[in-house]
Amino acid sequence: MENFEFQCATKMIFGKGTQLRVGEELKKHGATRVLFVYGGSSIKRSGLYDTVVKALTEAGLWFTELPGVVPNPRVSLVRKGIEICREQKIDFLLAVGGGSVIDTCKSMSFGVYYDGDVWDLICGKVRPGDQRIPVADILTLPAAGSEESDSCIVSDETIPMKTGFGSPLMRPVFSIMNPELTYTLPPYQTACGCMDIMAHAMERYFTRTQNVEMTDRVAEGIIQTVLHNLPIALATPDDYAARSEIMLCGTWAQNDMTGCGRAQDWFNHGLEHQISGYYDIAHGAGLAISFPAWMEYLCEKEECLPKLVQYAVRVWHADLNFENPKETALAGINRLKEMIRAAGLPLTLSEAGIGTERFEEIADNMTDGGAHTCGAFYAMTREDILALLDRMK
Amino acid sequence: MENFEFQCATKMIFGKGTQLRVGEELKKHGATRVLFVYGGSSIKRSGLYDTVVKALTEAGLWFTELPGVVPNPRVSLVRKGIEICREQKIDFLLAVGGGSVIDTCKSMSFGVYYDGDVWDLICGKVRPGDQRIPVADILTLPAAGSEESDSCIVSDETIPMKTGFGSPLMRPVFSIMNPELTYTLPPYQTACGCMDIMAHAMERYFTRTQNVEMTDRVAEGIIQTVLHNLPIALATPDDYAARSEIMLCGTWAQNDMTGCGRAQDWFNHGLEHQISGYYDIAHGAGLAISFPAWMEYLCEKEECLPKLVQYAVRVWHADLNFENPKETALAGINRLKEMIRAAGLPLTLSEAGIGTERFEEIADNMTDGGAHTCGAFYAMTREDILALLDRMK
Repeated sequence: MENFEFQCATKMIFGKGTQLRVGEELKKHGATRVLFVYGGSSIKRSGLYDTVVKALTEAGLWFTELPGVVPNPRVSLVRKGIEICREQKIDFLLAVGGGSVIDTCKSMSFGVYYDGDVWDLICGKVRPGDQRIPVADILTLPAAGSEESDSCIVSDETIPMKTGFGSPLMRPVFSIMNPELTYTLPPYQTACGCMDIMAHAMERYFTRTQNVEMTDRVAEGIIQTVLHNLPIALATPDDYAARSEIMLCGTWAQNDMTGCGRAQDWFNHGLEHQISGYYDIAHGAGLAISFPAWMEYLCEKEECLPKLVQYAVRVWHADLNFENPKETALAGINRLKEMIRAAGLPLTLSEAGIGTERFEEIADNMTDGGAHTCGAFYAMTREDILALLDRMK
Repeated sequence: MENFEFQCATKMIFGKGTQLRVGEELKKHGATRVLFVYGGSSIKRSGLYDTVVKALTEAGLWFTELPGVVPNPRVSLVRKGIEICREQKIDFLLAVGGGSVIDTCKSMSFGVYYDGDVWDLICGKVRPGDQRIPVADILTLPAAGSEESDSCIVSDETIPMKTGFGSPLMRPVFSIMNPELTYTLPPYQTACGCMDIMAHAMERYFTRTQNVEMTDRVAEGIIQTVLHNLPIALATPDDYAARSEIMLCGTWAQNDMTGCGRAQDWFNHGLEHQISGYYDIAHGAGLAISFPAWMEYLCEKEECLPKLVQYAVRVWHADLNFENPKETALAGINRLKEMIRAAGLPLTLSEAGIGTERFEEIADNMTDGGAHTCGAFYAMTREDILALLDRMK
């Protein structure tokens, strides 16, 4: 176990009816002028929009709105939000939605206090300062884990480029999490969200840092809990128990509890950000294509095999083949692929309508033309990435 | 899963050499006048005392000391500390030690702002207000989990009575956790600490709240990790990996993460507080006696059996006896007893030199003379408690 610091001060307000408390909670945290940020019409259809307006009004809070956040959220909207914050002297940001809405607020939150263009912060050219407008959220999509994480991801749609930044001050002040609000999610979005949650656990789980037993157990628990509950939520969208387990897993997978004291990998997220920068594909679908292929690729690497076997045995209950542990690792990966298929997610790029035309470009982008490698569990070279993409096609 | 709120803002600073940072961290958190609280001579022998003095001095902090905290910490010392805080205008409390030292600081922290006697707060006669002196700690004993918990336990040695109180504001601001500082713990104290850690996970794990899958997995992970690492730490006291797993488990077992969304039990802690109120016994030793006996007792209760079977299968890898699951539950409990024995802890009250003379009094205290029951997993009546004590003798 390596030395680490961990602090996650977000207050989680979890359960049925908790969205009704948003006004009083904002007030308790000192809000007076709120920017209410959301995506499209879904929160209007579900009635959540009206609930929030009523709660803010009843709490006597002044507020204005910024709708229009889209998946792979755009820096153009972040810039617009920053202008509103400055003009309207906003002192609290309320995100109602999933990771894209929360990430939009997180970027605005720091961007308001930065004199230059917010993209400087997002792409890492300038480090965020220690001033920010506090962010709170009502979560409607368990996936990104942004409701407790200290980072955010934003796209510049004109380049195109999808990247992100973080700060210990970026975690939301409070997150309202009512699993009932996820009943109306389309099955594909539920499945993509679960794939993202599992990926967040796996990006940390697959490490060569030794003696990370407790955090491994939590990551394994997250993956197992998602595996058990995703089919239930797909079959019975209003199963409260399944929805609540998935929602809690989404938060714990990404608040970095399981990342304590270890090198993390993040190769698959990097690859997926490349792919979804070029193509219109859901983040979870991209991860569903890359993760099993990457694991299979790494079964050939002696230094990676033990952890892949542990994953197969502990998470997938694969029988350990003592003579040939690689067979065990592959059996685990096969079960992951079966789960992905059963959840209606793609396993190849071609299923997602993505061709081979950008492979070289993606491998170049990820390694600066071969100048460096990518990932900590296994240091993927430009050639490794091309070989992997070939398996994914 | 029930509705819940969870917030744990403590900053965990974990790893080798982290105690050297105590001065700068205190300063960063606004400390100017510090009360340095500790137990006896062990931190002087280990050199930690000198390290702390040096770090505080180098950071330019004014400080004074309050030594003398004992296990089952005493309200008399808390009162003395409150006087010092008022006289010396202390603005930060630094606990260097285990749960007793941290709990002493937590009580003082709120007691300073209460006009009456601090025992009113401790025994629950008066609720703590929202003013307190911030507390930080350097942890030297993984056991109580007070380094992130929102509660504390203090004894009035004159009654005698051991009880406690809590507040969301009670969690330490930061906790410095260097597993190396636990190398010199005597084996018995290491074992008692591990029993306490397991007990904290089990007090939450044993619930009749349904659909608490993710939190169950974390609790199971904590117990399994402690089970694996305790024998290593006993055999090789300076095994950094084992000491670090135990230390992390101690915190996560008691920061209430595993308690989210469920009814918790706490019968065994209640019973142990009674026993250690009357007799000189280590908290972990008391728990080692009561927990297996209580589990065996509850194997007879149909409503409790499923969770006891789950515990036996998942934590102890007992083979499930499909025809007779109770046999499985008992096999799990037997493995727990073997582990307790191997760790050098007692399994009966007589081994700890405790007789039967107070049984009636304990059962009366816990149920107000039979007026109410005790515990949520199973509501223990006065008669149940007497029957259990009889099994423990």
